[in-house]
Amino acid sequence: MFKDNDFLYIDYTAKIKDTNEIIDTTIEEEAKKANIFNSEKKYGPQLVILGEHRLVKGLEEALYNFNINEEKTIEVTPDKAYGERDPTKIKIVSLGELKRQGISPYPNMVIRLQDGSLATIKSVSGGRVIIDLNHPYAGKTILYQVKIVKQLQDDKEKISALLERWFGSNPKLNFEITDDKKNVNFNVNKDIFLLEDIQMRKFMLAKDIITFVLPESVVSYTEKYDKSVF
Amino acid sequence: MFKDNDFLYIDYTAKIKDTNEIIDTTIEEEAKKANIFNSEKKYGPQLVILGEHRLVKGLEEALYNFNINEEKTIEVTPDKAYGERDPTKIKIVSLGELKRQGISPYPNMVIRLQDGSLATIKSVSGGRVIIDLNHPYAGKTILYQVKIVKQLQDDKEKISALLERWFGSNPKLNFEITDDKKNVNFNVNKDIFLLEDIQMRKFMLAKDIITFVLPESVVSYTEKYDKSVF
Repeated sequence: MFKDNDFLYIDYTAKIKDTNEIIDTTIEEEAKKANIFNSEKKYGPQLVILGEHRLVKGLEEALYNFNINEEKTIEVTPDKAYGERDPTKIKIVSLGELKRQGISPYPNMVIRLQDGSLATIKSVSGGRVIIDLNHPYAGKTILYQVKIVKQLQDDKEKISALLERWFGSNPKLNFEITDDKKNVNFNVNKDIFLLEDIQMRKFMLAKDIITFVLPESVVSYTEKYDKSVF
Repeated sequence: MFKDNDFLYIDYTAKIKDTNEIIDTTIEEEAKKANIFNSEKKYGPQLVILGEHRLVKGLEEALYNFNINEEKTIEVTPDKAYGERDPTKIKIVSLGELKRQGISPYPNMVIRLQDGSLATIKSVSGGRVIIDLNHPYAGKTILYQVKIVKQLQDDKEKISALLERWFGSNPKLNFEITDDKKNVNFNVNKDIFLLEDIQMRKFMLAKDIITFVLPESVVSYTEKYDKSVF
């Protein structure tokens, strides 16, 4: 039994109930078997903070009732996954218009529209193209095979996990928590003073620490420049 | 008599010797009289650090031999101002090509070429346009009427001047210099945690302090996040 703000690491494999199609997994071997391996994705148990709502609702809700190392299959209906299908989101567009955008549509192709949203081509005939603006998994019941492999208890471990989230596995910042837990002090290594988005990453890391680990603390970052930097 | 790394504030008005045309001034009233007032420019005495080479060479060199509050007119020849004119930088381009770039050229118009450089239109006739890629002041002797109005002596004043250079007149950072001058410690106000380019501004400020004020010091920035930030 877990509660809000618990830090868990989970492994899962998700498939569409109707078709048994595997759509996502944290396990590299499973991804390869299902032909969905993505070399840019980081496989391995994934950090979940309960109550953060980064997972689909039905999966996150189920995790509260797991035990550590327990493995279960969770069935998540569309209302707690990617929503019901909305028939009004099926539209007809002209083939010419898509071609002008550089798209040669064919059935089941997923395209990005000019407003950035994704759509699936349903059919192409006689210059008319039927596209579906519903999420590809809308209306689908999804089976998640899930195992909670670890829970973090220690504040220092939790902050390290958040540090990895925002700065990767070789983060170039070190930190200490004062004994009274009032201060979390990061020292930023000069190697990343000009890292892209460093200011936004620092902001988000501090936000996560204050939201999920030590709400009353002050998170400080110190950057020390000397002549060796220039 | 001044020396490298001296921090001066100067007022100046620059004019082309041949034509008496005023091309630049730090004095708002003079800019208005000469019809070159620019509402986005900050008028008033300008910070000069000797040896930094932000000014044209001849003007900077002359400043070493001023006294405080002395006002003199300096004559700067092209070799120590904007360079000699290079006749090979006068080119002929077709009117059609400029029009395709959205430019309708007329004599004396200054245009920006596709590579980002500036050019002056010399003449337009029969579909041929003569453009001049020399700096507009190349070949010109320039008269600078200059007064050194202030010299900064104190390290704290110099650092405040650099802080204004990089963070404006209301900088939202405060700092202290430790008694041994080994450390310059900035505290960054939370109002500017997400300021555009904050990381680059901090970098440049530290670089200027270490280059021109306290070469052996460590310049540190601390940013403290608490729940009131989010």
